[in-house]
Amino acid sequence: MSGMLVVAGLGPGGEALITPEVSLALAGATDVVGYIPYVARIPVREGLTLHATDNRAELARATHALELAADGRRVVVVSSGDPGVFAMASAVFEAMEQTPHLVSVTVQILPGITAMLAAAARVGSPLGHDFCTINLSDNLKPWDMVERRLRLAAQADFAMAFYNPRSASRPHQFVRVLEILREECEPERLITFARAVTTPEERINVTTLAEARAEMADMRTVVLVGNTATRRVGRYVYTPRQAG
Amino acid sequence: MSGMLVVAGLGPGGEALITPEVSLALAGATDVVGYIPYVARIPVREGLTLHATDNRAELARATHALELAADGRRVVVVSSGDPGVFAMASAVFEAMEQTPHLVSVTVQILPGITAMLAAAARVGSPLGHDFCTINLSDNLKPWDMVERRLRLAAQADFAMAFYNPRSASRPHQFVRVLEILREECEPERLITFARAVTTPEERINVTTLAEARAEMADMRTVVLVGNTATRRVGRYVYTPRQAG
Repeated sequence: MSGMLVVAGLGPGGEALITPEVSLALAGATDVVGYIPYVARIPVREGLTLHATDNRAELARATHALELAADGRRVVVVSSGDPGVFAMASAVFEAMEQTPHLVSVTVQILPGITAMLAAAARVGSPLGHDFCTINLSDNLKPWDMVERRLRLAAQADFAMAFYNPRSASRPHQFVRVLEILREECEPERLITFARAVTTPEERINVTTLAEARAEMADMRTVVLVGNTATRRVGRYVYTPRQAG
Repeated sequence: MSGMLVVAGLGPGGEALITPEVSLALAGATDVVGYIPYVARIPVREGLTLHATDNRAELARATHALELAADGRRVVVVSSGDPGVFAMASAVFEAMEQTPHLVSVTVQILPGITAMLAAAARVGSPLGHDFCTINLSDNLKPWDMVERRLRLAAQADFAMAFYNPRSASRPHQFVRVLEILREECEPERLITFARAVTTPEERINVTTLAEARAEMADMRTVVLVGNTATRRVGRYVYTPRQAG
């Protein structure tokens, strides 16, 4: 059994941010597999089967995609952003690990513009020095690991990008994140809330740690925290290359 | 004085990774400004002036680009990768800060595929959990800050991406980086050296911390270090979504 599975990043939302490499893979696909809103971005055409599944079903979705590929279909798994950043690529390899007869499938990952890069571009260059990228959801890790990483990241003076900062089922956790940042960082620290960036629902809000409120974030928001040197120039937020 | 300056990411090298948004901006430009090898990627055409400058001249290049924009030219500054990740975006805002009459120029940043995402995609999904991104050059920061960040990042169990790991003028520093990682991490830790990814000179090498040697990196290499859970499945390297 062999076959080939493509895992493609659709970028943050805007069609002009989809790479030609990804568009070409989609044009040649017989099957597109993914979370409902991402599959909804793929135009229907003859010869293409769309497999849209719910958000909680990543591992089952990945196994199904590998099986379709092993059967000789030309399958593209679609992710938003970049598949390797809190998206479908790791789920595909987890599925492969759990289903040894699927290890012979060739997997090709096609990178995409991940949300933090699009969000940073909208306000200037807040990630222009060393930075870290943290998924604030505790679905897949203990919450105390999130707290520990936040403190170490602040102590390292990393700029920070947060994915999945706040959901209806755990609104208190982002309140706690802001508390920890207030313990570790100065009140003037610049924070950007970038919601649904490059989509018609885009909403950008630049504020300070002192003024930040948990309600400024939801699950469609990426949060960017500057480092100690991050500042404003004109209408922009930027982190200088020089430090120390 | 007003004007508009576009700062565009050309991605890691492959033409199929340039977003349509960036291609459109380049098609409408009267002037393209950038480091020599990036400007060399732009096709010559009538009505387009290419301004190629040396690598050390980022701030002068950024000021020149802002001035051209203020004069009403349609200027695109080209960066490799993403302009906001160790590239030209922060230099443009530094130039703006130092030259107050240029603050009225509108700056539009167009994101690109940064090298770490293309490198990760080539080997699987090594950045599939929380990670940090560190520029190992000490041109713009004290070396002890690099060492301190490395240790804190390892203690936080971040996967790591290193840019500019090693140059001819400071070969000893990447030796020191490997020493620090050996003090903080287990010898089986997976490391990927990805050189000139998506170009004809691409060379990928996956090894362990025990087997890693400083000579495996140069200035065209991105280095990806896994976290404690990063492992191989089949031909791939991946970091599971689940931790702890």
